[in-house]
Amino acid sequence: MGNHIGIIGSGSWATALAKILTDNNQHIHWWIRNEETIRHMQLRHHNKHYLTSVYFDTGLLQLNHRVEEVVKASDTIILAVPSAFLRTVLETLPPNAFEGKKVVSAIKGLVAGTNQLINDYLADAFNLPLEQYFTITGPCHAEEVANEKLSYLTFSGVNAAETETLAARFNNSYLQTIVNKDVMGVQFASVLKNIYAMGAGIAHGLEYGDNFLSVFITNCFREMQEFLEKYEQNQAGSGKEPMVHNYNASAYLGDLLVTCYSLHSRNRTFGNMIGKGYSVKATQLELNMIAEGYYASKCIYEINAQIGAYMPIAQKVYAILWEHLHMEEAFLELEKGLI
Amino acid sequence: MGNHIGIIGSGSWATALAKILTDNNQHIHWWIRNEETIRHMQLRHHNKHYLTSVYFDTGLLQLNHRVEEVVKASDTIILAVPSAFLRTVLETLPPNAFEGKKVVSAIKGLVAGTNQLINDYLADAFNLPLEQYFTITGPCHAEEVANEKLSYLTFSGVNAAETETLAARFNNSYLQTIVNKDVMGVQFASVLKNIYAMGAGIAHGLEYGDNFLSVFITNCFREMQEFLEKYEQNQAGSGKEPMVHNYNASAYLGDLLVTCYSLHSRNRTFGNMIGKGYSVKATQLELNMIAEGYYASKCIYEINAQIGAYMPIAQKVYAILWEHLHMEEAFLELEKGLI
Repeated sequence: MGNHIGIIGSGSWATALAKILTDNNQHIHWWIRNEETIRHMQLRHHNKHYLTSVYFDTGLLQLNHRVEEVVKASDTIILAVPSAFLRTVLETLPPNAFEGKKVVSAIKGLVAGTNQLINDYLADAFNLPLEQYFTITGPCHAEEVANEKLSYLTFSGVNAAETETLAARFNNSYLQTIVNKDVMGVQFASVLKNIYAMGAGIAHGLEYGDNFLSVFITNCFREMQEFLEKYEQNQAGSGKEPMVHNYNASAYLGDLLVTCYSLHSRNRTFGNMIGKGYSVKATQLELNMIAEGYYASKCIYEINAQIGAYMPIAQKVYAILWEHLHMEEAFLELEKGLI
Repeated sequence: MGNHIGIIGSGSWATALAKILTDNNQHIHWWIRNEETIRHMQLRHHNKHYLTSVYFDTGLLQLNHRVEEVVKASDTIILAVPSAFLRTVLETLPPNAFEGKKVVSAIKGLVAGTNQLINDYLADAFNLPLEQYFTITGPCHAEEVANEKLSYLTFSGVNAAETETLAARFNNSYLQTIVNKDVMGVQFASVLKNIYAMGAGIAHGLEYGDNFLSVFITNCFREMQEFLEKYEQNQAGSGKEPMVHNYNASAYLGDLLVTCYSLHSRNRTFGNMIGKGYSVKATQLELNMIAEGYYASKCIYEINAQIGAYMPIAQKVYAILWEHLHMEEAFLELEKGLI
């Protein structure tokens, strides 16, 4: 059993994960779509577009723009592309591409179109058993990993020992790892928190203050739990094991906090521009990206149409972003129900 | 049954409460220790020292520097002095001073020397029954009240109807009120959060980043709950009713967040200077105050010596502030246990 890690994606989070692994002296196979980015990295030892300050020892890197080759060469594959692009990136792979391999999702979103958790999509498309699936979540802005500021990552998998082994490859002086079995819960937490950070950004853009924001985020935290409880009630009888969640841990509350409060948070920044009156289109052009929370709000809205959790904040964020709901009025209504 | 509200104290929180009440067109009896401050307010319509931008209609104010006269004239007395000074301020009052009156604590601390909750002290010193006692807590920096930024206050009292009536006097366009019966829990939350904000400030001063801070605060939140659970186990059999806590509400999590994150937070600011290497004395001189969390850390340390809750963060903050524990080493130890 091998030692070959592959990383799929070259955005800031993928680059941060590559830094952690190569700082730990591990060789990685790295799928980077753009050949020019690959050439630049070989020549200049850094990612031309993201976390440009991070220096890579190219002796540790196998760079490749063919995803099937990277998957083939690796026994552990880390998925770190935006959720909106996952299906497109993997569509050339044969159905047995992940046979006998471990797949680690570092994606903080659901699959576009089907609103599936990444493991459910991989089970459908590649017949991947849950035992071969792991997640990396937690409060971790890539920019602080680049600066080697102490950060915590949570690794989740149904097999505790294998999850420990995986996590150990990431552990170092600036990176602490936490392990649990809560594969599904932490994924939803990582999706929901982006919606709430959008909301926090909108509130800031609307000139609400620190007092309000703390109440708002508290209510987001409760809403997140209500969603998961309803989701589980809905799954009861499906044969899936019930999840065990520790909400008061960094994968839940911590990730919510850093995403709502940190100036590194792209979801908060995106929401802030919306709150100041920019359109989604203008915000996208200005920031040169669509934040995950934009898509997440729609996915969760659609899932919740089935399960009926009481989540007025997530619903208002969705309606502001996708249905042109009047922001000030939406927040005036939200104000009344906060505790 | 009257309508006469008295406020004891003239710091920024007392001034904010006076603003809310007078904005709601209520007359108040206001104890201000310093006669020069009283003269200034009568002449200039604002508090010379705190929230100086807040204009008062002096027609609504009965200013008085004799605490016994303010108490006598009022049927509802709001205590809003720093916890360290409470006993000194009230020591001239006769034991029956609060007979038939409601006492509302807006103090976020325990009584100096005895480490008592304010209601326990008032029961001892003035025979005040719990039915006549209320608290005002929640995430509310006075500066944002001064700016009429929407804020939330939690009113707690064992009689729900009377607590509602009290809260209603504060409700207005920028101030929403929440009511519960959790008198003791919210007081401890308001004390503990100052300790954790000190810790967050120290961490910031030590140059930990946003990722770490979110994990740190998450663990503070869990520790707060562990303290309260141990405290209650310890009280079991004392005849006191068990408390019902909603930790995921603004009086708990919200107050913790605003105190740890907001730049208005004096505890965070105080901790930040400590983290940057200033002594407690130098910080006190520079900021012209001692933050509540400084005293709180000692009170909680002493209480916890009796009840034995697992609270490494609060203990380290205490030891840094009071026992010259080496900060970097203390945080290196704390880092390991966070989840």
